[in-house]
Amino acid sequence: MASVDKAIRRTEFEDAWNVIRGELIDNFKSHGMPREAIDWYSRNLDHNVPGGKLNRGLSVVETVEILKGRRPLSEEEYFKAAVLRWCVELLQAFFLVADDLMDSSITRRGQPCWYRVEKPEKVGNIAVNDCTMLEAAIYYLLKKHFRKDSYYVDLLELFQESAHLTEMGQLLDLITASENSVDLNTFSMKKYSLIAVYKTAFYSFYLPVALAMRICGIPNSYPDPDPSNTRSKVKPYEIANSIFLSLGEYFQIQDDYLDFAGTAAQIGKVGTDIVDGKCSWVINTALSLATPEQRRVLIENYGVKPSKEEQARACNWLGSTSEEVQAYLGEAEKKVKAVFEDIGIRQKYLELEEGRYNHLMNMINAISEGPRGHEGVLRREVFVNFLNKIYRRQK
Amino acid sequence: MASVDKAIRRTEFEDAWNVIRGELIDNFKSHGMPREAIDWYSRNLDHNVPGGKLNRGLSVVETVEILKGRRPLSEEEYFKAAVLRWCVELLQAFFLVADDLMDSSITRRGQPCWYRVEKPEKVGNIAVNDCTMLEAAIYYLLKKHFRKDSYYVDLLELFQESAHLTEMGQLLDLITASENSVDLNTFSMKKYSLIAVYKTAFYSFYLPVALAMRICGIPNSYPDPDPSNTRSKVKPYEIANSIFLSLGEYFQIQDDYLDFAGTAAQIGKVGTDIVDGKCSWVINTALSLATPEQRRVLIENYGVKPSKEEQARACNWLGSTSEEVQAYLGEAEKKVKAVFEDIGIRQKYLELEEGRYNHLMNMINAISEGPRGHEGVLRREVFVNFLNKIYRRQK
Repeated sequence: MASVDKAIRRTEFEDAWNVIRGELIDNFKSHGMPREAIDWYSRNLDHNVPGGKLNRGLSVVETVEILKGRRPLSEEEYFKAAVLRWCVELLQAFFLVADDLMDSSITRRGQPCWYRVEKPEKVGNIAVNDCTMLEAAIYYLLKKHFRKDSYYVDLLELFQESAHLTEMGQLLDLITASENSVDLNTFSMKKYSLIAVYKTAFYSFYLPVALAMRICGIPNSYPDPDPSNTRSKVKPYEIANSIFLSLGEYFQIQDDYLDFAGTAAQIGKVGTDIVDGKCSWVINTALSLATPEQRRVLIENYGVKPSKEEQARACNWLGSTSEEVQAYLGEAEKKVKAVFEDIGIRQKYLELEEGRYNHLMNMINAISEGPRGHEGVLRREVFVNFLNKIYRRQK
Repeated sequence: MASVDKAIRRTEFEDAWNVIRGELIDNFKSHGMPREAIDWYSRNLDHNVPGGKLNRGLSVVETVEILKGRRPLSEEEYFKAAVLRWCVELLQAFFLVADDLMDSSITRRGQPCWYRVEKPEKVGNIAVNDCTMLEAAIYYLLKKHFRKDSYYVDLLELFQESAHLTEMGQLLDLITASENSVDLNTFSMKKYSLIAVYKTAFYSFYLPVALAMRICGIPNSYPDPDPSNTRSKVKPYEIANSIFLSLGEYFQIQDDYLDFAGTAAQIGKVGTDIVDGKCSWVINTALSLATPEQRRVLIENYGVKPSKEEQARACNWLGSTSEEVQAYLGEAEKKVKAVFEDIGIRQKYLELEEGRYNHLMNMINAISEGPRGHEGVLRREVFVNFLNKIYRRQK
C-alpha cells in the first residue's frame, strides 16, 4: 500500500476512535457517575488505548477488503471493521496495563506506564481495576454495534477465548521468568513455543483475521469451492488458526533473533534479552545444541547483569559505532554471545526462516479457493499478505 | 428452609464444584500446559473460589424452583443452575482477588489474601493475571454448558454487564476512599448510593436472579398475565433490576449500620468504619443532619487512628464485656460515636428500615402474576423470599 494511502487510513482510523471514545464516555456518564470518575475513566482510555503501532488493528479492514474482493468498503462496513479493530486495541491495552504492573515496567510507548502515573492523581494499584474496565469496554461496544448481527455471539466468543488463551500464556511466562534468579534448567523449546503462541499469536494474529472473517459471513465450514472436489468440507477458522499460530510463533522467533543479531540502528534499541535472562528462541536453540562445556558457560553467564563499572561505560553507548557498543558489553554477555556464534545461531536462524516460509506457503497454497468472485470463502491472499510483511524482516 | 435440608443442598452444591473444577483444569491441560502451570491454576481455583458464604450462589437454584413452581429440580436442571451459581462465585472471586490487591488487605475468609500467599511459590502481582483467569473461566463454562441454549447470549451479556457495572462502582469507591487522608467534603449520599448499587448490588442480587429467570425462559417482555389487564406489557428484567438495586442498597446500609451499632457478639467483629474513615451510610446521614459544631467534631475525628497507647489497650478487648470494649475505644472514635448518638442515627435507621421495607413490598405487590401455574412469568415470591431474609437482620 502506498504510504499516502496508509496515512489517510490511519487518520480515518483515528477519527473512528474519537467516535468510539465518545460512546464509551457517554455510557459511563449515563450511569450518573460524578465528574471525577468520568475524568479518571477518560484518562484511562486516552493514556492506554491509542498510540500503539496499530499493525494488529489494521489487519481487520484489510482482511475484510480481501475477503469481499473490493475497495473501498462502504461507510458502514468500514466503521464496523474499525470498531472491531479498536476492540482489539482495547484488548491489547488491557493486557499491557496488567503486564506493566506485574513486570514493574517503567515506560510504554514512550510515556510512563499507567500504574506509574502520578498526576493529576496517583494511579498505582487502581490500574488493576482500570485494566479490567478496558476489557469491559470491548463487550459494551460489541453489544452496541453488533447485537443484531447473526455473528454477534461469535464475536463475543472470539474475544473471550483470545483473552483466556493470552492469560494462559501470560501465566506460563510469569512463572517461567523469575525476577531474581534465572534457571536455564526450567527453559525448554516446548515452553518457549507455548508462551509465544498463547501469549501473543492468538490475539495478535488469529483474532483480527477471524473477526474479519465473521463480519464477512464466512461460516464454520462449507463445501470445498473447487468444482473438482465438492465432496470434502473446508473448515476455514481451523485453517486460519493453524496458519496464524505458526506465523505468530515465527514472528516471535524473529523478534528474539533480532534482539541478539540486529544492530541498534536496525531495531531502534539495544537488545537486553541475554542480560535479562529471557526465555528466548536464541537461548533455547543454543541449549539444544550446546556441548557440556558450552552449556556450563551459558549457565554461568546468561542473565548475569553487568557490573556497575560496565554499566557506567554502557551508558555512553549512544552515538557510538557498533564496534564500540560491542566493547561496552559486560563480560558475561560477551561470553554468551561468543557461545551463540560458535554454535552457529545465525545459520540456524536462516534455515528456520526458509523452512518456516516454505511450510507456511504450503499451508496457504493448500487452501481451496474456488473461482474468483466466490463470496464467503477463505482466500489465500489474507495470509500471503501477512507473510510477505514479515518474511526476512530486519526490524 | 430446614437446616438439614440446607446442609444437604450445600453438599450437593460443593459436589457440583468438584465437577466444574475438573472441567476447568482439564481444559487447561488440553492446551498442553506444563505441570507447574496446571498446579498454579489449580491452586488459584482452590484458594479463591470455594469458601464463600454462598448466599449469592444459592439464590440461583431457589429462584429457579420458585419460577418453575416445583422441587426438586431434575438432575440436569439442578446442575445447570449450579454451574451458573459457580459462575457467580467465580465472578466474585475475580473481584475479591483484585480488591484485596488494590486495598493491600491481609486476610480474606480466614486465610491470607491470594496475592500474599508465599508457598509453595510467591504469588505477589501475578494475582493480577490470576484474577483475570477466574473471570475467563466463567465464559469457558457458559460455552461448555449453554452454547446450544437460546438464552446463551443473554447469559454472556448478564455476566459482562455485571462485571462492567461492578468495576464502575469499584472505581468510584477507590477514588473516593483515599488511603492516607479522609476528606469528608468529598463524601455525599449520592456517591454512597452509587457505590453501594454499582459495586455490590448488581452482581450480588440482580445477577443471580436474572440468570435464573433466563434459564426459566422468561422473555424480555410479555403481555400482562392478569386476565383483566392483557393490553399492557410486563418487563420482568426491568422490574427485577429496580427491586434488587433498591434491596441491595438497603443491604449495604444495614451492613454499615451494624458496623456502628452492632455488638461484637452479634456481627462477629469489631466495627472499624469510623477509624478507617469509610464513606458509609452512617457518616453520610450524620453529615446531612449535623449542626456546624457537630460537623467540626466529625471532620476532626472521623478516620483518625487511635494512638499507640490506645491501640495497645484495644488489643486486649477480646473476651471483655461490651462496656470494657467501649472504654478501650480511641478518643477520636468516642467523639464521633457521641455525635452519631446525638444526631439520632439509631432512630433514623429504624425509620429508613420501615420505609424501605414498605417501599419494596409495594414494588413487589405491583408485580402482575396472573393465576398460579402460569409458567414463564415473574413471581412475587422471588423477591419476598429475599426481603424476608434480610429485613431487620441483626448480623
